[in-house]
Amino acid sequence: MSPSIAADVHSYVPHFETLKKNAKVTDKVAPPKEEQLVLNTVRCLAADLCQQYKGGHPGTVMGAAAIGLALWRYEMRYNPANPEWFNRDRFVLSAGHACLLQYLYLHFSGYEAWTLDQIKQYHAPVMSGSMAAGHPEIEYPGVEVTTGPLGQGISNAVGLAMASKQLAATYNKDDLKVVDNKIWCFTGDGCLQEGVGQEGISIAGHLGLDNLILIYDNNAVTVDGNIDSCFSEDTSAKLAAQGWHVIEVEDGSNNLAGILEALDKAKSLTGKPIFVNIRTVIGHSSSKQNTGAVHGAALGEEDVRYVKEALGFNPEEKFVVPPKTYDYFQECKPKGAAAEAEWNKTMEQYAQRYPAEYKQLQMRLAGKFTEDNWKELLPAKQDLPTAAQPTRKSSGIAVQALVPKYNSFIAGSADLLESTFVNFKGQVEFQNPASGLGDYSGRQIRWGIREHAMLATANGFAAYQKGMFIPIASTFFMFWLYAAPAVRMSALQGLRFIGIATHDAIGIGEDGPTHQPIALAAFYRALPNINLIRPCDAEEVMGAYEIALDDSNANTPSLFCLSRQAVPLLQGTDRSKMVKGAYIVYGEDVEPELTIVSTGAEVARSIATAKLLSSTKKVRVVSMPSQKHFDAQPLEYRQSILPTSKSLVVAIEAWGSYGWARYAHASLSMHTFGYSAPADQLYEKFGFKPENMATKIDAWVHKWQSASRLPAVGEFDELLLGYAQH
Amino acid sequence: MSPSIAADVHSYVPHFETLKKNAKVTDKVAPPKEEQLVLNTVRCLAADLCQQYKGGHPGTVMGAAAIGLALWRYEMRYNPANPEWFNRDRFVLSAGHACLLQYLYLHFSGYEAWTLDQIKQYHAPVMSGSMAAGHPEIEYPGVEVTTGPLGQGISNAVGLAMASKQLAATYNKDDLKVVDNKIWCFTGDGCLQEGVGQEGISIAGHLGLDNLILIYDNNAVTVDGNIDSCFSEDTSAKLAAQGWHVIEVEDGSNNLAGILEALDKAKSLTGKPIFVNIRTVIGHSSSKQNTGAVHGAALGEEDVRYVKEALGFNPEEKFVVPPKTYDYFQECKPKGAAAEAEWNKTMEQYAQRYPAEYKQLQMRLAGKFTEDNWKELLPAKQDLPTAAQPTRKSSGIAVQALVPKYNSFIAGSADLLESTFVNFKGQVEFQNPASGLGDYSGRQIRWGIREHAMLATANGFAAYQKGMFIPIASTFFMFWLYAAPAVRMSALQGLRFIGIATHDAIGIGEDGPTHQPIALAAFYRALPNINLIRPCDAEEVMGAYEIALDDSNANTPSLFCLSRQAVPLLQGTDRSKMVKGAYIVYGEDVEPELTIVSTGAEVARSIATAKLLSSTKKVRVVSMPSQKHFDAQPLEYRQSILPTSKSLVVAIEAWGSYGWARYAHASLSMHTFGYSAPADQLYEKFGFKPENMATKIDAWVHKWQSASRLPAVGEFDELLLGYAQH
Repeated sequence: MSPSIAADVHSYVPHFETLKKNAKVTDKVAPPKEEQLVLNTVRCLAADLCQQYKGGHPGTVMGAAAIGLALWRYEMRYNPANPEWFNRDRFVLSAGHACLLQYLYLHFSGYEAWTLDQIKQYHAPVMSGSMAAGHPEIEYPGVEVTTGPLGQGISNAVGLAMASKQLAATYNKDDLKVVDNKIWCFTGDGCLQEGVGQEGISIAGHLGLDNLILIYDNNAVTVDGNIDSCFSEDTSAKLAAQGWHVIEVEDGSNNLAGILEALDKAKSLTGKPIFVNIRTVIGHSSSKQNTGAVHGAALGEEDVRYVKEALGFNPEEKFVVPPKTYDYFQECKPKGAAAEAEWNKTMEQYAQRYPAEYKQLQMRLAGKFTEDNWKELLPAKQDLPTAAQPTRKSSGIAVQALVPKYNSFIAGSADLLESTFVNFKGQVEFQNPASGLGDYSGRQIRWGIREHAMLATANGFAAYQKGMFIPIASTFFMFWLYAAPAVRMSALQGLRFIGIATHDAIGIGEDGPTHQPIALAAFYRALPNINLIRPCDAEEVMGAYEIALDDSNANTPSLFCLSRQAVPLLQGTDRSKMVKGAYIVYGEDVEPELTIVSTGAEVARSIATAKLLSSTKKVRVVSMPSQKHFDAQPLEYRQSILPTSKSLVVAIEAWGSYGWARYAHASLSMHTFGYSAPADQLYEKFGFKPENMATKIDAWVHKWQSASRLPAVGEFDELLLGYAQH
Repeated sequence: MSPSIAADVHSYVPHFETLKKNAKVTDKVAPPKEEQLVLNTVRCLAADLCQQYKGGHPGTVMGAAAIGLALWRYEMRYNPANPEWFNRDRFVLSAGHACLLQYLYLHFSGYEAWTLDQIKQYHAPVMSGSMAAGHPEIEYPGVEVTTGPLGQGISNAVGLAMASKQLAATYNKDDLKVVDNKIWCFTGDGCLQEGVGQEGISIAGHLGLDNLILIYDNNAVTVDGNIDSCFSEDTSAKLAAQGWHVIEVEDGSNNLAGILEALDKAKSLTGKPIFVNIRTVIGHSSSKQNTGAVHGAALGEEDVRYVKEALGFNPEEKFVVPPKTYDYFQECKPKGAAAEAEWNKTMEQYAQRYPAEYKQLQMRLAGKFTEDNWKELLPAKQDLPTAAQPTRKSSGIAVQALVPKYNSFIAGSADLLESTFVNFKGQVEFQNPASGLGDYSGRQIRWGIREHAMLATANGFAAYQKGMFIPIASTFFMFWLYAAPAVRMSALQGLRFIGIATHDAIGIGEDGPTHQPIALAAFYRALPNINLIRPCDAEEVMGAYEIALDDSNANTPSLFCLSRQAVPLLQGTDRSKMVKGAYIVYGEDVEPELTIVSTGAEVARSIATAKLLSSTKKVRVVSMPSQKHFDAQPLEYRQSILPTSKSLVVAIEAWGSYGWARYAHASLSMHTFGYSAPADQLYEKFGFKPENMATKIDAWVHKWQSASRLPAVGEFDELLLGYAQH
């Protein structure tokens, strides 16, 4: 450890009065001269970078400059020349708005892409080639996950720590450790207030993830000012109660030695994750330090001048980096290269001594989960159960076939393992070995009743090394609304998971309207880069897995909406056709006067309806498991399936009608929330009984055919809204 | 206190080994005979009620029977003859699946509507008149909020406690207390794992809500089995660290005296909310007690028999309530009537001594926030600022005009008070008086960075007494995704709030794609019973408030999507027309060949585009602030505004295109996530520059007019998808 000033660091003692309230933040504990220059450089750069575009977040960068120095210069293990080096430490900036802190230290420590010119593009258009986005983005070197929406970064880091533990338990040998890195997460006050952050903290404590170090930049100020007005808990005590080691550092904007001692200690502790509560001064060295004014706005010309004068920089110059600041980080590159070289040696030995494991690891590093023809593991249609069964249960067949066999899968649930059929046999649970319930080699995850963190930690798994893990996460479809903010981040980052969303509509029955989704599918269908797939029978469930696991979806998550109730295996279904999004499942050989397009559990009802109508008219039924795949087809294909100019097209789906106007003239849909009642009675109540539907549609066909000309968009919308239904 | 057995109750001592781990759960502390009979009755009824439909959740009912007895027989204040009595205690069953516990005690304590026959309808169709839904629903007597989605009930209760404190601080006098009730919340393990529960707990601790008593039914078992596999924190210590009083009770399935002592004590404590951690045995008296098997499934015939035999009931009889069980609750009705009578006397005195306050209270009890013509407080169009300004700032004008004046409004933010313009002047903050930052009479709320709990507590305010509060809650539109599960519950329950969703699209600029909504509007537009309103200028912002606060929306929440960036006050806007959802803002007098339909910040761009095109063709621009209001208009009106059979209709909106097919042939929309860049450059990048749009649309009109016949739904959908755009 370079600086030599005595540290003020202590482990957490219960009922210690919190630092936030009592710490005397002074400048007395100054860092040595060299280090002070680095901190001053960072603070002046933060001021300049925000000022040039009159925006951005300077406060945390200035306040936490010493933490950044400690991390990138001393504590973290990485190789700037190879940001993707597998055994690197992972760093997550959960307080993503403080991105300049990360960008600047990536620059100093020698990441070539992060030139100062690049960082000067902070708040310039990213689409013109800038990497210095307003929040860190996964696409760029040294950034492990995209952050910004608060709280999620903590859970991403928990997921990364789980992934690291899982890989270590799977591949490390007594004589050779190929995975032994740390996961660092930097959080502000905001992430600690968000529920998803709390959920992640609880999971990490439960699992005893001692490779995870959560650094709390405790500046006690948010956008709205002093945190005392909304956050007054004893955070250290709270984390200790959840099974974390706690270390506290006072005066964390200056006391570099203290920070280093704390982080060294954090790296040495075992058995529990480590929380390092570091008291800092937001906007340190600004005339407005310690106020909300420095959080999310440029300091203003006058204050920038003040900062530079206070720190001994020339106020007439901008973006100044003294050579000594660069000198200070000279060692980072050789240190990183040496670390990777050492690991490479380990890997060479590993290849010789453990060739099978080595081969598998290399395959997974290349983003593959197998070289087998894995599709053969899924039963062919003729081998599927002929008796009606819930699609969630059919999904379980695929889970059992794939998950135990391939180490890339981790699978679990937010406390609904059995209901969602992701409890797979013969597998150890992923648990703290000290619990006696499993160990870290396990791939069966129990996320607890924490849907949001389930997905945010799944994102951590998926981001650990692209393609190395494929998380399978499950809960009732309705509770994918709790998880939605994290799912959106999966889609944005191109992180693949398979989501099992069961009990997907009124078929959930007696649990009632609180558990019956109406509008949720509209969100996921509208969201870019995610496949919402609603299979109608066991055959289509197999097809859903084929789509989700296809290489073409390596960067796209998929969400399967599955029925609680049993549905028959339909004659017309064909997994190979699903990739086109929609295809004919009944009446393939007719030129239809009526086309019914449907999804999931309603397809069987649609066919029953079609059969009732087929004595008097030519009827086709189309299954549309994925609107997005259908949209991607050529117009010709789409019109061949849904011939909207020649046939009335009616959509049947037990969700809201929103979005169906793109495909159909009319719909039978849900127009209100549901009820608590047995599923069959709900289907009848809401008009989905084949006899009712046949009668209604018959009248619609007549109306449509008697129109004097082809109806235009909107003209038949009273049908689409289903006003005719009630 | 009736039972006289010594209690095993103690306040929380730091680092007390948790009950969950160490409690020896025994039957040694049996309740007295009379009470034992009640508990046995409840347990046998739970077994029977679940068994008859072979479903439901018996475990918690059986485990927590003693807690229910203590609450309804002794601890809570309510009048069964008038479930809506204003000064009643509020009870929230956050563990909503345990609804039978509540239904049964409502029955015993004398709520007439809750007959045993009614409760026997548990899991029968609610739409045929049953009240015994699978989760408690707000529509029925004795139910304060609908629960089921876990965690939210805790935050609902926090909101109810805030509401009670706020009313007490506003209306109570030294000599007369018209509001002095308690809020009781019953939680299981699940709600304590959910982030929204954690957020609520943190808020309540911060605010020092000593009228809130959170009872933890600590049975340590969930659907998936023993909670040790996913939840191993010291919950009591965690709550203590967050500023809660903590009381613990061992053997809470039997030790009734202990429970009563603990709850008595909870009622007497001040300064902090109270957490009562009661160790129970799920499924108490079942042969499968203390396992996940009793959580969410009927016990089975054999076990039902076992339970009855064990408890001295005749296994051949069903739904048996011994007369002595009814006798035991005889006192509840007179006690409740006396409590209300006493309060009525207080109110009479209050009416005499404080007539103005009394009058206001009565008005609010009737669900009105004023008898003024409040619309006059909103500036007329000619009085609005003529300079361009963000619609979020225009919203601030309405907030300033209305909120300080009317006590029904509470307004605040998830840490974005200033950015969302809900910081209103001259108002005390709602804060713990001990903090020195405000007091409970305040109506300015600082929710902290807790969007989900913000809305769940807002639901508590709105549910306190229908119409008595109108919460105004704000954050960036993107973070309304964090809040979405609670918003859905507002819509389901008909709880009105006004949601301020600012920075609503790519106009947020440099914060980048993590902060730029693409798909979120599709969810809210598809959700029943909520108004998503996107005003295009200051005039439409005023109209949005008029709609949201109109009596017709007393049971409907509204969400306003508002721009970060400045938009001009448009000549054609008219608040009075907004109630029809869409109306013409440009080109009212032409028979259009082209109709542009747009919303929010894109309307001004649409008009600019129309002007570029108007030299060669007849163009109309329609502002559509609310799709839902438009959908409710007669077909004739809709066709008069969007003449889809005579004019090409193009939608322009900087969100995804999903849903627009219902209104338009083509759209200019977002088809990917956004970027971090200045707003203007993003608008240009994504094709929203008027010059670009005019060129593109010109070609589309030509294509449309040259079609040999009117195009059908889907035929032009390559335009609607915007594939032509890129």
